[in-house]
Amino acid sequence: MMASSTPSSIEHTMLAASEQLQVPSNITKFKIGLCQLSVTSEKNQNLACARNSIKAAVECGARLVVLPEMWNCPYSNDYFAKFAEDFENEDASPTFSMLSEAACSHGITIVGGSVPESSDGQLYNTSCVFGPDGKLKAKHRKIHLFDIEIPGDITFKESDFFAAGDNPTIVDTDVGLIGIGICHDIRFPELAALYREKGARIICYPGAFNISTGELLWEVMQRARAADNQLFVATCSPSRDSSGSYAIWGHSTLVGPSSEIIATSGHEETVVVAEIDYSKIELQRKGLPLDKQKRADIYLS
Amino acid sequence: MMASSTPSSIEHTMLAASEQLQVPSNITKFKIGLCQLSVTSEKNQNLACARNSIKAAVECGARLVVLPEMWNCPYSNDYFAKFAEDFENEDASPTFSMLSEAACSHGITIVGGSVPESSDGQLYNTSCVFGPDGKLKAKHRKIHLFDIEIPGDITFKESDFFAAGDNPTIVDTDVGLIGIGICHDIRFPELAALYREKGARIICYPGAFNISTGELLWEVMQRARAADNQLFVATCSPSRDSSGSYAIWGHSTLVGPSSEIIATSGHEETVVVAEIDYSKIELQRKGLPLDKQKRADIYLS
Repeated sequence: MMASSTPSSIEHTMLAASEQLQVPSNITKFKIGLCQLSVTSEKNQNLACARNSIKAAVECGARLVVLPEMWNCPYSNDYFAKFAEDFENEDASPTFSMLSEAACSHGITIVGGSVPESSDGQLYNTSCVFGPDGKLKAKHRKIHLFDIEIPGDITFKESDFFAAGDNPTIVDTDVGLIGIGICHDIRFPELAALYREKGARIICYPGAFNISTGELLWEVMQRARAADNQLFVATCSPSRDSSGSYAIWGHSTLVGPSSEIIATSGHEETVVVAEIDYSKIELQRKGLPLDKQKRADIYLS
Repeated sequence: MMASSTPSSIEHTMLAASEQLQVPSNITKFKIGLCQLSVTSEKNQNLACARNSIKAAVECGARLVVLPEMWNCPYSNDYFAKFAEDFENEDASPTFSMLSEAACSHGITIVGGSVPESSDGQLYNTSCVFGPDGKLKAKHRKIHLFDIEIPGDITFKESDFFAAGDNPTIVDTDVGLIGIGICHDIRFPELAALYREKGARIICYPGAFNISTGELLWEVMQRARAADNQLFVATCSPSRDSSGSYAIWGHSTLVGPSSEIIATSGHEETVVVAEIDYSKIELQRKGLPLDKQKRADIYLS
């Protein structure tokens, strides 16, 4: 299996999911910042808002900052193509440049939420991860697009606008191994299980659940992924825009390895900063070794 | 893969998990009863209490009745061996006889929670399923035993007392295909996914989560198993006995295929009766076809 492709000119440490990865032994405790951003139809304003929010998270001590799904662009087909950027031409990508500059100038790791990516005539819903040197470390294209049609509740077909990614993304960062999923990717326990198996200590899911599925599933999904895999799950959503056509749930959250909510928010624009302590993972896995208790011999159909 | 063994003299319709099963087309809507029983150190009292509770559920219209984990015996090693019964010698098993009689006289399906089973010199934590003719349809031995040691919180080692079962159990009943798990079995998403793949419309988990793990995980686990597999999940717990050494969470619950709680309880002795409507499964799976959206090609490690 190959990891997502990245520009060959970019030095990166993104790893194929088939490789066995190790967490740097020197990182045991650090702060994460979840920037629950207000998204407008002005890209420059969104970039400035994100930049300020990253700074605010860093000022609260964050060493890892996560942005929401689709934070530089309204969640509407009227904007996707117009706002899309080609990350292989980074000089012409203001989003790439801002994230790279922010990561480098603050010396942090950024999971850059997601934005529309234009590549080879396709649009993707893509998350870029930058290291403290400002370099791109990984690029995750949303694998599971959100196609839903529940009469009287919600109809949405993301695959009308975007092509799907084909690769899980696990990235070796300054703060350990991180698995990346975008929004609907969280609905698939198999992806989270793969990340755990490959050594991820955190799974970051930028997401933009709507009010309907958000109230029902946002908390349950992230807590289940954390509990089943005994790792941290961090989600980051845009804030709710009551004037927009797509009402967003918000509630960016950090969940710990026993499924406990460590920090969360409402639906307003905010920054959630909270501590990740990897020793909690060891404690949990030692006390309740789910991995050893699994019976892989009997789950086969 | 073989299903759990049953006495050869018993006619049954238990199916090997490797067979493809079909839901009877005539069942679309029925009531389930969850008997949240108070468990004492008097087995006869527990049997009488369960019998009354089954009757109460039936009087409320239940066609499928679920009992709790370890309902005929206190959850303590002081009682397991003494209360254990050998289901292969059914005439000498008052628990077997009562469940068979209750199922037959009411013409219902009973998922008989779990009780200690004695077999070949081993003890198992076992659930028996009876059909409306009073015959044993399936026997599930708890696969994943609850061994946990979290200092300052909880220490418990079920494998000191019980041997583990080796087989998933999916049973073709009068009210459709049911997958069976017992308590800690719910922590393993792979088992639920297997049941869904084999056609289960409901997974019944008799369980006796304690207060600590119950408050944290009981609801999250059952809602996640339901949401991920788009089926019904029914849990049934004993009620809390404040004088006992093992404080039980209670909260027997029916969850629907979009993760919604249809009915639940507190921790007191009670019967929860609620409607299962299979058309909700079809609606959910048609509107959000998670199975088709899965990317089995990329989850492999």
